[in-house]
Order: sequence, then C-alpha cells, then structure tokens
Amino acid sequence: MTTKFISERNIKFLLYEVFDVESLTHYEYYQEHNRKTFDMVLKEAIRLAKELLWPVFEEMDRNQPELINGEVKVHPSVRKIMREFGEGGWITSRVPFDLDGEQLPHLLADVCDFIFQAANYSASAYAGLTAGAAHLIESFGSKELYHAYVPIMYTGNWQGTMALTEPEAGSSLADITTMAEPTDEAHYLIKGQKIFISAGDHDGVENIVHLMLAKIHGAPPGVKGISLFVVPKKRIDQNGKLVPNDVVASGVYHKLGYRGCPIVQLSLGDKNDCHGWLVGEPHKGLRYMFQMMNEARIGVGMGATSMATAAYYASLDYSKNRRQGRKVSQKDPTLPPIPIIEHADVKRMLLFQRAVVEGSISIIMQCSKYVDLMKVLADEKKEKYHLLLEILTPVAKSYPSEMGIHSISQGLQCLGGSGYCDDYPLEQYFRDSRIHPIHEGTTGIQAMDLLGRKVIMQNGQAFMFYVAELQEAISSAKTLRELKNQAQQLNEALTRLQEVTKYLLELAQSKGSEHFLADATLYLEFFGIIAIGWQWLLQGIAVQKALNNGAKKADLNFYKGKMFALRYFFGYELPKTLGLAERLRNDDGLTVEMGTELFND
Amino acid sequence: MTTKFISERNIKFLLYEVFDVESLTHYEYYQEHNRKTFDMVLKEAIRLAKELLWPVFEEMDRNQPELINGEVKVHPSVRKIMREFGEGGWITSRVPFDLDGEQLPHLLADVCDFIFQAANYSASAYAGLTAGAAHLIESFGSKELYHAYVPIMYTGNWQGTMALTEPEAGSSLADITTMAEPTDEAHYLIKGQKIFISAGDHDGVENIVHLMLAKIHGAPPGVKGISLFVVPKKRIDQNGKLVPNDVVASGVYHKLGYRGCPIVQLSLGDKNDCHGWLVGEPHKGLRYMFQMMNEARIGVGMGATSMATAAYYASLDYSKNRRQGRKVSQKDPTLPPIPIIEHADVKRMLLFQRAVVEGSISIIMQCSKYVDLMKVLADEKKEKYHLLLEILTPVAKSYPSEMGIHSISQGLQCLGGSGYCDDYPLEQYFRDSRIHPIHEGTTGIQAMDLLGRKVIMQNGQAFMFYVAELQEAISSAKTLRELKNQAQQLNEALTRLQEVTKYLLELAQSKGSEHFLADATLYLEFFGIIAIGWQWLLQGIAVQKALNNGAKKADLNFYKGKMFALRYFFGYELPKTLGLAERLRNDDGLTVEMGTELFND
Repeated sequence: MTTKFISERNIKFLLYEVFDVESLTHYEYYQEHNRKTFDMVLKEAIRLAKELLWPVFEEMDRNQPELINGEVKVHPSVRKIMREFGEGGWITSRVPFDLDGEQLPHLLADVCDFIFQAANYSASAYAGLTAGAAHLIESFGSKELYHAYVPIMYTGNWQGTMALTEPEAGSSLADITTMAEPTDEAHYLIKGQKIFISAGDHDGVENIVHLMLAKIHGAPPGVKGISLFVVPKKRIDQNGKLVPNDVVASGVYHKLGYRGCPIVQLSLGDKNDCHGWLVGEPHKGLRYMFQMMNEARIGVGMGATSMATAAYYASLDYSKNRRQGRKVSQKDPTLPPIPIIEHADVKRMLLFQRAVVEGSISIIMQCSKYVDLMKVLADEKKEKYHLLLEILTPVAKSYPSEMGIHSISQGLQCLGGSGYCDDYPLEQYFRDSRIHPIHEGTTGIQAMDLLGRKVIMQNGQAFMFYVAELQEAISSAKTLRELKNQAQQLNEALTRLQEVTKYLLELAQSKGSEHFLADATLYLEFFGIIAIGWQWLLQGIAVQKALNNGAKKADLNFYKGKMFALRYFFGYELPKTLGLAERLRNDDGLTVEMGTELFND
Repeated sequence: MTTKFISERNIKFLLYEVFDVESLTHYEYYQEHNRKTFDMVLKEAIRLAKELLWPVFEEMDRNQPELINGEVKVHPSVRKIMREFGEGGWITSRVPFDLDGEQLPHLLADVCDFIFQAANYSASAYAGLTAGAAHLIESFGSKELYHAYVPIMYTGNWQGTMALTEPEAGSSLADITTMAEPTDEAHYLIKGQKIFISAGDHDGVENIVHLMLAKIHGAPPGVKGISLFVVPKKRIDQNGKLVPNDVVASGVYHKLGYRGCPIVQLSLGDKNDCHGWLVGEPHKGLRYMFQMMNEARIGVGMGATSMATAAYYASLDYSKNRRQGRKVSQKDPTLPPIPIIEHADVKRMLLFQRAVVEGSISIIMQCSKYVDLMKVLADEKKEKYHLLLEILTPVAKSYPSEMGIHSISQGLQCLGGSGYCDDYPLEQYFRDSRIHPIHEGTTGIQAMDLLGRKVIMQNGQAFMFYVAELQEAISSAKTLRELKNQAQQLNEALTRLQEVTKYLLELAQSKGSEHFLADATLYLEFFGIIAIGWQWLLQGIAVQKALNNGAKKADLNFYKGKMFALRYFFGYELPKTLGLAERLRNDDGLTVEMGTELFND
C-alpha cells in the first residue's frame, strides 16, 4: 500500500507558483523568511507527518477513546504528538516572534497543518484546537489570563478546546443555558452542561483549557447575552498547584469516524466549585468566539480536503496496480488484463477526485493568502481582504466538506469490494469525512451565513470584491489560448451567479426572508462550484506561465495532468451550475409552504 | 426512537393505486389471489419484520461475523430467521403452487422483501440469496439436482449463494480461473478460490449450496467458457449422510457496514475432493447466472431503497421532536425553539429523501410489474416487457444505490452531531448503504450495460418501448391541471434524453466505442433521473385520480404530501439533467485521451 497522502509537488506549485508566498517576504512582518526557510519548514512538516502521525492513523481509529474512571483514555501517541508539536513550534507557527512564535505566513503554516491532517486528521486536531484556543486568549484575554494559560498551552502540555454546544443549543447558540455567577474574586462560578466537545477531556495532556460560552446572571436574552470564559479542567490553587475545577467528563461519544479524537460531554459545577475567568468584556463572547470559529471553519474545510487528498492517493495507487478487464474496444479474453487506471471510467473517477481536492486546497490557500495580506497591509487596504475572507469562509468550509465525501466515495468505488473492507483505508476516510458538514456549523448554517449575511453585508461590498477577483482572473485567462474557453465558461457562470443573486435579493423584498433563504444551501453549492472554477483558472494561468517560461522536463507531466484536471472541472463540474440556477430562479416557496403535517405518512 | 421503517400507506398506494396489483388476479396464473389475501400477506410481512428482524438490526451490526475454527459464526438470530422464513413460505413466495410455493405476484413478493430489507437488510439477505440460488437450479438444473437441493433450501435449512468473484476476477468475469475437471461419475472436481461471497459460510444453517461459476478443462477462453455448478459445502455420501466437500472458508471480511451478513473467502479443492455438479449445459454458465444476477441487481436497488426509507423515517422522527432555533423571520430569543422540521432547509432535506425513496421504490415495483406481466401474458406480448425489464434493470439497480447514499447522508445531516454518533441508526445506514454501488456489478458496470448493451439491443427496440412508456404517462398527465407543468418538464427531459442518446450513438460511429462509453456512468445518472421523474408522474396521476374520486379525509394529508414530494422532484432533481446533458453532448474524449502517466504527481 502507498504511503503517499499528499503531493509535495502540488503543494509547492500552489505555494510558489499560484499564491507566491515569497512575495510576502517583501513585507516587514515576514521579512525574516525566505524560500529556503519555507522549504525547510515544509520538509520538516512532511517528515513529522510521515513518522509521527501516519503510522498511527489506522490504530487510533481501531482503538477509540473510552471514558474510564472519569477520564477519557486516548491512544498513547496523543501525548507524544502533543509534546512534539509543542517542542517543534507547530502550535505556535503563526504566533508573532515577540510572543515566542515562528511568525510564519499563514499560507505556509496552513499548508503544514494540511499535511498533518492528511496524515492523520484526528491526531492533528489536538494541536489545532490548542492553537486556536490560545489565540483567542491572546486576542481578547487579559495579560494575567495570557500568562496563566497560553505559554503552557504552546508547549503541548495543556489542551485547548472550544466549548459551545449544549444539549438544547447546537445550531442555535442563542439558547445556551450554562450560567456564570460573579463572585467577589476574579473568577465566576460556572454551572451547566456542554456536549460534543472535541478533545474535551483526555489523558494525553496535564490539563484541559476550555474556551467556553456561558451567560452571566442577568444577561440579555439570546446571543447578546453570551460571554466567553476560560474554564480549565484543573485550576491553579493559592499554592500554585493544579487542583480539580469541578469539570466532569460525563460521557464520550461513539462515532462513525474521527475516532482518534474524543468528543466529550461535560458537566460543569455539579459541586458549585467550577471557576471560570471572563475573557474580554461581558456579553461579547460570541463575537470573540467567532475568531476561533472562523479559523476553525476554514480548518474544517482544510481537514475535509486533506482526507479526500489522502483518499485520492490511496485510490490512485490501487488503480495503477490493480489489473482487471480490457479496453472496451479490445475484448479479446486471451490478452492480459490492464491496470484499471486505463479504463476511461476509472480515469473519470480519479479526475473527479483530483478536481475536487486540488480545487479545494486552492480555495483554502486563497483564504490563507487573504489572512496574510490583512497582516501585512495598512488598515485601509485590509478591509478588502477582510471582506473577501468573510464571504469565502462559508464556502471554504462547505465545498470541501460536502464534495470531499463524494470524492472519497469515488475513491472507494475505484477499489470495488476492497474499498468496502478495512484492509484498505478508504472505508475509514469515508467514515471520518462525514463529520465535516456537521461540525463548526452545519452546511445549512454556512448557507444562511453566506446568503443571509455575507452576500448582503456592507451593501454587497464583499460580494462586489469577490466578483472583481473572478473578473480579474477571467481577464488574465482570456489572453491565453489554452484557457480561453474556460475563461469564457467561468464568465458565463459568474453572470449566472450575479443574476441569481439579484433574483434572490428581489425575492427577499417581495416575499420576505423565509423565501429568500429557503434554498440557501443550494445557493452555497452553486456559489462554491463557481469559486472552485475560479481557483482552477488561477492554477491554469500559473501552469501556462510555467510552460511559456520553459518548464523543466521533469515537470511537464505535472503541468499536463493539471490541465486535464482543470478541463475535467470545467467539463464535468461547472455545468452543474445550470441545474442549480434553474432551481434557484424559482419562487414557488415549496419548502416554506409545505405544512409539516404533510410528512405524516 | 421511532420503530417506523416503512410506510404501509405508501406501499398500499403503490400496490393498489399506482400498479394495480389486483388487475393481475384477472389472469389465470394469479386468479387464486385477491385483495384480501394480499392484505393478509402484507400484514404478516410487517409483523415478521417488526418482531423478528428489526429488533436485531443494531445488534447484528455490533457483533459482526468472525471465522472461528474454520467456520463463520454469525448472530444466533440468523438460524431462527432462516427457519421462520422457510416455514412461513417467504423463501418460496414466488414459487409456483405445483412446486409447493405461494405463487404470489412479484409485485407483492417484492414488496414483502422490501419490508424485510427495510427492517434489517443484512438479516434479509440470507433468505433472498437462497431463493435466488434455488430458482436458478429450478430453471436450469436437472430433476436430480432439483430434488437433491431445492426443497431443503426452501425450508431455510440450507443456504444458497452466488459464487462468482475471484481474487483476479471481479468486474471481469471472463478471467475466472476456478477449474472443473470431469470425472467418470456425475460430478466434476472443482479447484479454485472465490472471494466476496455473501453468506458464503455460516453456522446458521446445516449446509451451504454455492451456485458457482467455473471453467471446464479445455473450455474456450473468456466468458464463453464459463459453466455453472452446484458446489455444496457438505455433500451427501452413498449412505445419504452429509460429509465435508473440501470447501474451506479461508477468511471473512471486516466491512464498513452490512455487517450482519458475512462476506467470505472460499478455497475449493485443496484436497482434490471438492465435488461440483454441472447446471444445464457446459459453457452456458454466465447466461444462466444472469437470471440470478438480474434478480439480484433489482434486489440491490430495492435494498438500497429500503435502507434509505428506514433512514428517512428515523430522520423524520428526529426532525419532528428535536427543537432548535426559530424561524428566520422570527429571531426573538425569548420565544420557545421550534421543532426543526419547521425550518425550510430541514423540510428540503426531508423532501429530498422522500423524493428519492418513494421514487426509487416505484421504479423497483415498475420492474416487478413487468415480471408479472411476462408471467401472465402470451409469448408474443411478453417481449415488450422483457425488453423494458432489460433496459430498466441497470437503472433500478443504480439510481437507488447511488442516490440512496445521498438520501441517507441528508437524513444523517438532519440529526447534526447526533447523526454522527451510534446512539441513532443513521450512521449505520450510512455505512450499510455504501455497499450497493459495488455489489452485483458496480455502477460503472451497470452504466456500460445500459448504454453499451441495453440501449442498442435489438436495434434500439428496448429504448423505443421505454420512450413510449414515458410518452404514455406524459399524455395522461397533460390532461390534469395539477400535473400539466410536470408533464411538460418530463417531456422536455425525454427529448433531451433522445437527443443525447442519438448524439452518443453517432459518436460511437465517428470515434469508436471508447469515446461512446467514456461517460456511460453520467448517462446512467441522466437516464435514471428521468426514469424517476416518470415514476413520480405516474404517482401524481394516481393521486389526482384519487382526489377526483373523492378521497377519504384521512388520506388527504398523504396525497397532499405526495404532491409536494412530486413537486420537489421536478423542482430540484429533474433540473440536474441540464448539466448532465451539457456534459454528455461533448466529444472531447477527455478521459479516453489522458495518459495515465499524467496522474503521477
């Protein structure tokens, strides 16, 4: 079986040829870095992924976390991984130098996370959550909070989490009931229940630091009354010793996949002794949390892409080595069977996967680039990239999450019956990947965010910036003979997007928000396909540039393969927007008007 | 949790109002039956499904078969189920009276199987395979073979299987290498390996009867040299005692799902003592086997439908009871949360499932009806239904198999995080259902069968009959105000199908079979959506008929709900044919021409 779970060539193509990460080093903030250091970081990330994460990918699945004597037992490698990630600076890859971080461009740091996720998504989640939680304290917490928690989280000795969901509050955070009672001291007393908390308890670290949403007594109802707290599993007492903080792991879920990482139920303050410390100001918790949530949403899109990428290489390897049947034009049974990759239908399934995974990682890296530009540019220039990031976040979360499952399913299909059995990793990818349309806001929630908030925000400014980005790519591509057709196709799709958007905004006026948002999920799908088309066009431009500049012979197959994947996307995927547009330009309000009693039989 | 896994109302609607099973009793062959006996059979099937199969649905998954001391151990309920199925006449439901069967119309017998599958697909597979294998001996075997095997198989004491696949011959049966050596006696000596044999060995029966493909020494190469044998696990010796027949279960697969039924590796003739008995004539084995295979293909489509149906009711139940959030037009957080079924996006996910599952069971029953008509009509009238069955078999297998997974995935999505955990059955349906696009011929194989064989067979006669069936439904629907638009839509889609088909047939002429069949899988998808649109139109006609005849008040919600599901299918699903047609009318030969070396990076 192959051990290939990513393509280093493709990563470098995107980093250096499409997104030009080197250009960031011209800005002061990233001037300490250069191509050489980037390559070294990349090499080390790949080594770590191969040696530390990949070998336990299957084992962590087969030995899922269990709650034993009040503590969640995880695979022993978790402890080792967290320590190595801490020591290697992987939790602090994006942290500024002056806070003892590596200050890497997000483009590069995100790609390293992608490599870790591709090797073993569950194993990579622990450090990712810790980095996000620490960043949240760094951004909005007091100096005291920062010093008490962040440095030790960065060592990998303490785990960070995001604790939002409750039994009666999942998609609707307005309804959380976990309460925070002020005390005469610095802390609040926390009481409530949290569920579905990733890495919410485990024995691979010394402590767990929950970044938790709760309501302070007397707070306004709904999301305006939500505050953010740091609630550790163990708190530091007057003597500087870690003591239990009345945070009890009351259950661990048995899941379809993603089994290397525990999802935990927590009970807080059963003994009225759970201390929590407010982060920032009261009632602004959800706003703060959105920093971590937005990062996590792109992280989920990246995770979905990473699994589908690893699945693609596993199915590619099988397809090259498995011999079965003959060409349809050559049925002589005395001829030897051919590798199945030579069958057009298998090539189609492989191209589908490649089109999805290489399109998905590209949109993720596009977001990373925007984050970097926000870091380095002056305030007045930042806004554009901020808005682009806002409008693309639900897309970067959802397209890979939804399409990643289809991609993996096609990968599994390449293996036939073997794909259904656990001798090959495809069945695990299929199980693992199903989490992505759910966690960090379901696809339905992302869709409402895109159409109901992002498209209309600031009088449509984000949407206009987005359209301009596509138009710029289309203009460039039009000048290249090899991309002319695709540029034209994307242009037509973009026009379709603008027309549909206009239609829906008018529908909002004439029929109200229920009708406007009824098919938001289809709009998200529609928008997503066009966004990936844009990313493929950007990749095509980079390919043609390389070919025109006399690419190395060793690179020719890579570039030619890219062009086939690009053509696949435009030939097979982009036409799906036709049917979606047909539906979206419809005001029958079918799902709004159907009475729920009609589902009875 | 709900115990509803099927809708009796919907089954009766299809049986009596759409497909008019009662009309079959006007023919001599079915004249012993009437509506009353049909209802009794149905009632008993539902009882059995609820009491015998459903209670062990989860348990059989959690305790998967294991190979212990050379025998596959299965859940103890398998023995009980096989006996009750034998005693209750469920294995012989389609067998003629004169062979001690129930001689039920296929429409009814198939619906009963559907009910069993919906309750517990794995558990129902044992009897289904036995019925198919026995039917194969009955159709093509000698009287001696029949008497030696079939009656005892019908009791549920002996298991039947279909043993086709080998390590080097899955999709390409031409390459099987299991050999049959003639002897001076009635039997052959069998030697070889078989893999992926469903129910290929287990301790829930006294014996296993493999209907096995093998090649007689000196046979022509390829499929023309394949013969069919009965190869029992234990054979009857001269004293009438069961003795081992040198058939060894060498492995059992650990699978993603479908865990209640073992998939077994077999080693045959390791001691040169494996006896096999030829069925029918030499070298005609594949042709015979196609009887069982075609039945099994529709059975797989039905199984896929059944799982998606059960998943639909599980997600419907959850959606009615789970409260979360408020209407998008009403965000006041002090109002109580609403059942999630009231959200338009959740209704959309439920309607999608309903459109898929009720469309799928309809196409399956359409096939059943054709089988029944072939039974009762004179030879010259049979041919039409034979050809319709031929062209619809790959569609009835693949549409439910592919769309069933999406349907279940949407069902799982309705539950959010809970759908991902094993506290609810959705994750099991998601795992179980992934087998269907693989077993009994992958979707790619079905697609080649449809476009490369069925569409062109007898100068396109099957295709012409199919088009005529749709035109007839369209004509009827056009006369009904409530269906006018949908009739028009289906008519346009049918025109599109004819145009695309013509285009592809011309492509076959101009560019050859590789180009012709390159996108066969997309053609199958395209064809399938239109076929399901036809079935929805037939259902719509039946609904309007009922409403015009003054339906009972208690039925109004059912009929109204049907119409919403119908409108959903035409509003959301049929437009997908636009993008598919766009791609299919393309001769770029992308997947034919791409060199496999371009996949290297």
